[in-house]
Amino acid sequence: MSSPALASLVARLKRANTLGSVVGLLQWDEQVNLPPASSDRRAAQLTLLAELHHRAATDPEIGTLLDRLEQTPAPAGSDEAVIVRHARRDYDRLTKLPVEFVAEKAALDSEAYHVWTRARAESDFAMFAPYLQRQLDLARREAAYLGHADRPYDYFLDRFDPGLNEVQVEGLFAELRTGLVPFVREIVGSPIKAPEGLLTGFPVAAQDAFLREVTAALGFDYQRGRIDVAVHPFCSGDAADTRMTTRFKEDQPLDALFSAIHETGHGLYEQGLPLAWLGTPLGEAVGMAIHESQSRLWENQVSRSRAFWRHFEPRLRAAFPARLDEVSSERLYLAINEVGLTPIRVESDEVTYNLHIILRFEIERGLFAGRITVGELPAVWRRLSQELLGLEPANDGQGVLQDVHWSGGAFGYFPSYCLGNMIAAQLWVAVRRAMPDLEEDFARGDFTRLLAWLRSSIHQHGKRFDTRELVRRVAGEELSPRHLLDYLRERYAPLYLPPKR
Amino acid sequence: MSSPALASLVARLKRANTLGSVVGLLQWDEQVNLPPASSDRRAAQLTLLAELHHRAATDPEIGTLLDRLEQTPAPAGSDEAVIVRHARRDYDRLTKLPVEFVAEKAALDSEAYHVWTRARAESDFAMFAPYLQRQLDLARREAAYLGHADRPYDYFLDRFDPGLNEVQVEGLFAELRTGLVPFVREIVGSPIKAPEGLLTGFPVAAQDAFLREVTAALGFDYQRGRIDVAVHPFCSGDAADTRMTTRFKEDQPLDALFSAIHETGHGLYEQGLPLAWLGTPLGEAVGMAIHESQSRLWENQVSRSRAFWRHFEPRLRAAFPARLDEVSSERLYLAINEVGLTPIRVESDEVTYNLHIILRFEIERGLFAGRITVGELPAVWRRLSQELLGLEPANDGQGVLQDVHWSGGAFGYFPSYCLGNMIAAQLWVAVRRAMPDLEEDFARGDFTRLLAWLRSSIHQHGKRFDTRELVRRVAGEELSPRHLLDYLRERYAPLYLPPKR
Repeated sequence: MSSPALASLVARLKRANTLGSVVGLLQWDEQVNLPPASSDRRAAQLTLLAELHHRAATDPEIGTLLDRLEQTPAPAGSDEAVIVRHARRDYDRLTKLPVEFVAEKAALDSEAYHVWTRARAESDFAMFAPYLQRQLDLARREAAYLGHADRPYDYFLDRFDPGLNEVQVEGLFAELRTGLVPFVREIVGSPIKAPEGLLTGFPVAAQDAFLREVTAALGFDYQRGRIDVAVHPFCSGDAADTRMTTRFKEDQPLDALFSAIHETGHGLYEQGLPLAWLGTPLGEAVGMAIHESQSRLWENQVSRSRAFWRHFEPRLRAAFPARLDEVSSERLYLAINEVGLTPIRVESDEVTYNLHIILRFEIERGLFAGRITVGELPAVWRRLSQELLGLEPANDGQGVLQDVHWSGGAFGYFPSYCLGNMIAAQLWVAVRRAMPDLEEDFARGDFTRLLAWLRSSIHQHGKRFDTRELVRRVAGEELSPRHLLDYLRERYAPLYLPPKR
Repeated sequence: MSSPALASLVARLKRANTLGSVVGLLQWDEQVNLPPASSDRRAAQLTLLAELHHRAATDPEIGTLLDRLEQTPAPAGSDEAVIVRHARRDYDRLTKLPVEFVAEKAALDSEAYHVWTRARAESDFAMFAPYLQRQLDLARREAAYLGHADRPYDYFLDRFDPGLNEVQVEGLFAELRTGLVPFVREIVGSPIKAPEGLLTGFPVAAQDAFLREVTAALGFDYQRGRIDVAVHPFCSGDAADTRMTTRFKEDQPLDALFSAIHETGHGLYEQGLPLAWLGTPLGEAVGMAIHESQSRLWENQVSRSRAFWRHFEPRLRAAFPARLDEVSSERLYLAINEVGLTPIRVESDEVTYNLHIILRFEIERGLFAGRITVGELPAVWRRLSQELLGLEPANDGQGVLQDVHWSGGAFGYFPSYCLGNMIAAQLWVAVRRAMPDLEEDFARGDFTRLLAWLRSSIHQHGKRFDTRELVRRVAGEELSPRHLLDYLRERYAPLYLPPKR
């Protein structure tokens, strides 16, 4: 550590981070363990801890130290420069928002969430619309407080993925859309369909054992992490204690498995961040898109590959005696790589998923630009859904109301999912360029070379590079949708679009 | 709430308690969930939370409010009087110990614990002796800081059980010893022995399901509590979120079951404390002896009774098909009520257990009075063990080094276990006096009347009454070992000492 001021800053950041990690554990426990009637107590614990965390993260001494360190800036790219730049960002965001604004936002988040759950259940957009309008208003005010009144949507995109803006994303998504919409039309029109209801009666205990074997093989370190059951799969915690969840249904063994693999991708990233920098920007993920690139790479490129199943298919059959006797390898592989239309984003496959995101991006930027009003959303949703997916949701509950994000004012978050897919495809090209025989490892159940490459290319850097810069360094080219389009065609055309004889 | 000062005090106590409850949850998670390599992170979280908890509990405003409230004392026994009295006690204890003393004690606790684990494994008392001496010295200093330099052992007894002192305990234990030593000699000399290795191959999942059925029937509210697996059974949390643990071995189903029932007794007490007063002395258990009386009453008087097994034996047999076919009801009941000699306290039965405690009490008071030196402990232990139990441990690891308590300076804690047994027996007499047909409920699997009686007699009062006062109110007589002796003879004489024909 080059200076006492930096050491002092880091100590304060780590202190705030430790408190944040306790908040994270309370939230994990709430999803995994909390008895149903204990939620009031948990709310009181979380409120108090959030207050203490906020106090630690807005310690005026952090501001003083940042001022001092900024007077003689460290060389760009140095540890100090990275820490100071991101700590300043975080500190400003926490201190420039007036207390009343933060309180108003917290109250609205809570209220809007409850209204949204009801509105979705009753498929009643009008009930939710005023809350969405208020979230939009608050989002504009938040951007203004942080000095981005002119481009509020850019502020949110940059918040989740440092360095990204609307114009860039628009260009990337336009190219992706052009290639993807006709490809999806082709697959949907194909006579070949993934089998439904193929896998039934898979005992949960055996599913659990199998996915632990798989995720451990991928490299998840169970010495400093866990997997448990929760309603929605997620990955929480950090490099010191990584906690993932999945969920089990006897008739959907692939859902539990691929949810666990997806979260393992997130978990491997967290576990690969440098432990010595835990609690500082150098021990923190770049942003949501890079995080998602890790989960998607392991989930899709790796674990839906033929090489992966060469190793794991015999193990799956052994783990579930008799359940797969009637299922050919080819049918199993098609079920693993199912593509089909659904109005629901979270139920969609890796091909159509991207179109769900483009739809949301178009709406978000339209809202912020004032081209779309909140009242018009249901109609816009249906139109875009028709254009992009070729279908319309049966009602608003399955359409514009399906996602929780906007109820909490989380604008600018959706694009990260699709950008993550693009980046995963770019990394996939890059790693196979470096190791052309990589998939032979998978066929032996060996993923160590891939993990080591991700560790050194991505994980170890923390926030040292912004999203696009990191992609440029690792892939040797700009962030682009080209490789995603190639990858999807390479994987799915042979399955769904066999050459006509 | 009668005054703004009291309301303000209560708010501050609750705030500190909420932080304490987060510490408790982190500790629970450490025992139940923490990945092995995540313990450094947990230590950092606990250190920081303990600091914040200490700061909240020693908030100078609490002292100011206590001073103000003490100027015009509330009527004895009123809510305010109870809160102020105990809050003062706690506040003084936290503020009268110098910071350096607290740091010295924390460092010694940690060091002494590690030395003790090694000393026990190597059965090397000399290794541990200097640490025990330092804990004793610190204990004397602690008592002096709190104004009890003249009777330090009384200070510790009172800390765990408000109102108790050495002279009282000495009298109770002397009477108990006189009755119990010859009774144990009789049982040990009996040709009738509890069967060993009777129950083998009980699948853990079925054990888990069975003990959940039992503990739910006893009244544990799983809507605001859980049971999980840990190395050592314990009950943590509070009325809002009660977390128990047990442990499973296929060949020791009774261990898992009775551990769970014991912890359920603790849990029922916690769940019966008034939720509105959570975080104040009125929402807190009286002390360790009353707490132990609850766990022991449910574990022993209730769950080792014939009436209890009239209901649960058929269920046990149904839950474990074929495992009990060869086991007669009488043999099963004898296994449930096993009595036998062991040098190890935690492996002992409810009869001999009390003698293990008397041994420790004699040593503790001898140490504090200066009649016994630390160096003499192994010899004193062997002599007392011979006098009380009629056996000597094979080595110090199984003797004077067997318990963790002294390594942490927890003097005055052991007596609570035995006092709890006495109180349980007194409550047992009192409740059957009030409801002579109570055990007929048990035979139907119904424990609601007993729980309601404990709720109204004990649980709802929090710390309103001190240990002896509470016993006097509920049992209508002074705390006494007489009923424990009667109960043990009543339960065990028919099993082990059948009338000679």
